[in-house]
Amino acid sequence: MSEVYAARRERLRERCTAGGSATALVTRPANVRYLAGAAPRGAVLLLGRGEDLLLCAGPPADEAGAGRPDEALRVQALSGPGGDPAVAAADVATAQGADSLAVEEHHLTVTRHRAIGSVAPRLRLSDLGAAVEQLRVIKDEEEISCLRVGAEIADQALGELLESILVGRTERHLALELERRLVDHGADGPAFATSVGTGPNSGRCGHRPTDRRVEEGDFLSVCLGATYRGYRCEVGRTFVIGTSPADWQIALYDLVFAAQRAGREALVPGVAYRDVDRAARQVLDSAGYAEALPTLTGHGVGLEIDEDPQLAPAAMGKLDACVPVTVEPGVHLPGRGGVRIDDTLVVRPEADGGPELLTITTKELLAL
Amino acid sequence: MSEVYAARRERLRERCTAGGSATALVTRPANVRYLAGAAPRGAVLLLGRGEDLLLCAGPPADEAGAGRPDEALRVQALSGPGGDPAVAAADVATAQGADSLAVEEHHLTVTRHRAIGSVAPRLRLSDLGAAVEQLRVIKDEEEISCLRVGAEIADQALGELLESILVGRTERHLALELERRLVDHGADGPAFATSVGTGPNSGRCGHRPTDRRVEEGDFLSVCLGATYRGYRCEVGRTFVIGTSPADWQIALYDLVFAAQRAGREALVPGVAYRDVDRAARQVLDSAGYAEALPTLTGHGVGLEIDEDPQLAPAAMGKLDACVPVTVEPGVHLPGRGGVRIDDTLVVRPEADGGPELLTITTKELLAL
Repeated sequence: MSEVYAARRERLRERCTAGGSATALVTRPANVRYLAGAAPRGAVLLLGRGEDLLLCAGPPADEAGAGRPDEALRVQALSGPGGDPAVAAADVATAQGADSLAVEEHHLTVTRHRAIGSVAPRLRLSDLGAAVEQLRVIKDEEEISCLRVGAEIADQALGELLESILVGRTERHLALELERRLVDHGADGPAFATSVGTGPNSGRCGHRPTDRRVEEGDFLSVCLGATYRGYRCEVGRTFVIGTSPADWQIALYDLVFAAQRAGREALVPGVAYRDVDRAARQVLDSAGYAEALPTLTGHGVGLEIDEDPQLAPAAMGKLDACVPVTVEPGVHLPGRGGVRIDDTLVVRPEADGGPELLTITTKELLAL
Repeated sequence: MSEVYAARRERLRERCTAGGSATALVTRPANVRYLAGAAPRGAVLLLGRGEDLLLCAGPPADEAGAGRPDEALRVQALSGPGGDPAVAAADVATAQGADSLAVEEHHLTVTRHRAIGSVAPRLRLSDLGAAVEQLRVIKDEEEISCLRVGAEIADQALGELLESILVGRTERHLALELERRLVDHGADGPAFATSVGTGPNSGRCGHRPTDRRVEEGDFLSVCLGATYRGYRCEVGRTFVIGTSPADWQIALYDLVFAAQRAGREALVPGVAYRDVDRAARQVLDSAGYAEALPTLTGHGVGLEIDEDPQLAPAAMGKLDACVPVTVEPGVHLPGRGGVRIDDTLVVRPEADGGPELLTITTKELLAL
């Protein structure tokens, strides 16, 4: 694996040199992990002149799924308490003879930025911007296989829940149960706070579980994901509780399903982000639900659950092959509830069979 | 409750006016919640000239334990997606005729700070510093009663775990089980990632659970806490697995217990933070464990799990009455494990009976 991390750092170094600063300081944890193989708490990566350095606040902990720092990388732990590895890194950069340092201004606080400036007054601080985030968009097959395992785990956890008795249990209990099952099946942990919505709460994007209990006739929507070796996937489904769905439930479900399928089918290399969004959105729009829609149809996933690209009306850019994204349209009707269907897929060329569906739980409307 | 929040904002306003900026922007979520009663995702509080305003990224969600915004406060949700409420707040401040704005430089990123500067070029941006964090140190009785309920919940969850079979179960499963029990007993959720350490992992501060299974003869150390109405407490205990502890285990336990008691007994109004730390630390130091000690003996708790004050060797300041703190010394011996004992207490005058212990789980060395 070591060559992978070294190659990633080399690509970033090329971008930095082209941008005028040969030395860069990476502080955002997911970016540190991408380039160094691990991001112990507080760790920062100095992409130096000659040697790269991972600076940690203390000795790296042996945490489930946390990864190991690239062996080709020098790792240094601060000795005293309370020190900021970012400030120490600026000191090292000066000692290495750097005259400028590109930092992640979208991650560093004003206070930390100023502390770096004080300790290294001769360094010209510039903005690295989202350079690392951009490198992270297209995944290699190793990364995709981590997502694939995570998706299998999430599918398993969801499948087992469906076999249990649901009526009378609270949203919070169902969410905790799902998270326990994720870990049972080998996840590092949940990829994000598991969302379970019943009745009027169903279909709400990012709904945080409450003490409402599942009742007969409810829609039940569930959104969960597993983290596996740091990679985060997402699956969301909506079910009906009881013997048979009401007509409005069937109609709403069919509509969201059609929108989600349209979004999935739009995933081809070269398509504009906004066109994937439009494909799903126009199905819902034309049925009169323009007001009830979330602001986006999907987003990239990887070391974070919400990465570039955004599949949204105003997004700029085009999809590449090997970009994993969610497609997750939904409709929520205030007071009644709604439907949300969410898959993680990898964009693939049509010659390779088109988009690869990672989350394979059925999308039929199940009555539980 | 509304008067409580208004009074807090008034105290902050007085500090700001004394500091030269009548208008302030609070962005750190715990600070927003302290002053506004709730902190919906992304919400910021503008302490304006005349009127205060809570600006949210979207409509506030109905989340367990999230609180409700103070009714005396005007709440405004941004309409479009992707907007930054902090930037919108700077716009409002300008419209209100402000000429300066104090911001939380230890929380705002460089990018957001710059965006605020661009939208409101005539506002002089200054640093609010830790003004709100300082207001939060001394708690009122309402806040303390939330901590008290949270501590009861954590004690209950821990007590139930001790009655179950432990040998053969993994650290991760025990941690998940504890978190489920916290929610069962009415917590909003865990106050922090529950730590369970067995055998060589026991006694490590902030240990993240692994797949190691509990074995006969192990030390088992557990640290957990409940969040109740936003307030976070902490309790940590160490047990021995099996019929009877080894001599080294008994000796180490007695030592840490003596250190923890010395720390608890040092909690009186007016004592220096560092003297509480020293009281606990010197017990361990004199037994030859100077190298094995964590960097602090305890810390404040409240809307965050790690607040001011820090009970550490270099900390400046003195304890006041009604300040809740942890006392949590420990010793970890690499390869063997260790002991950690952690309570949440409220500093009280001796006339009122001295420090109030919130976490009442026994500190006898139990063999489970």
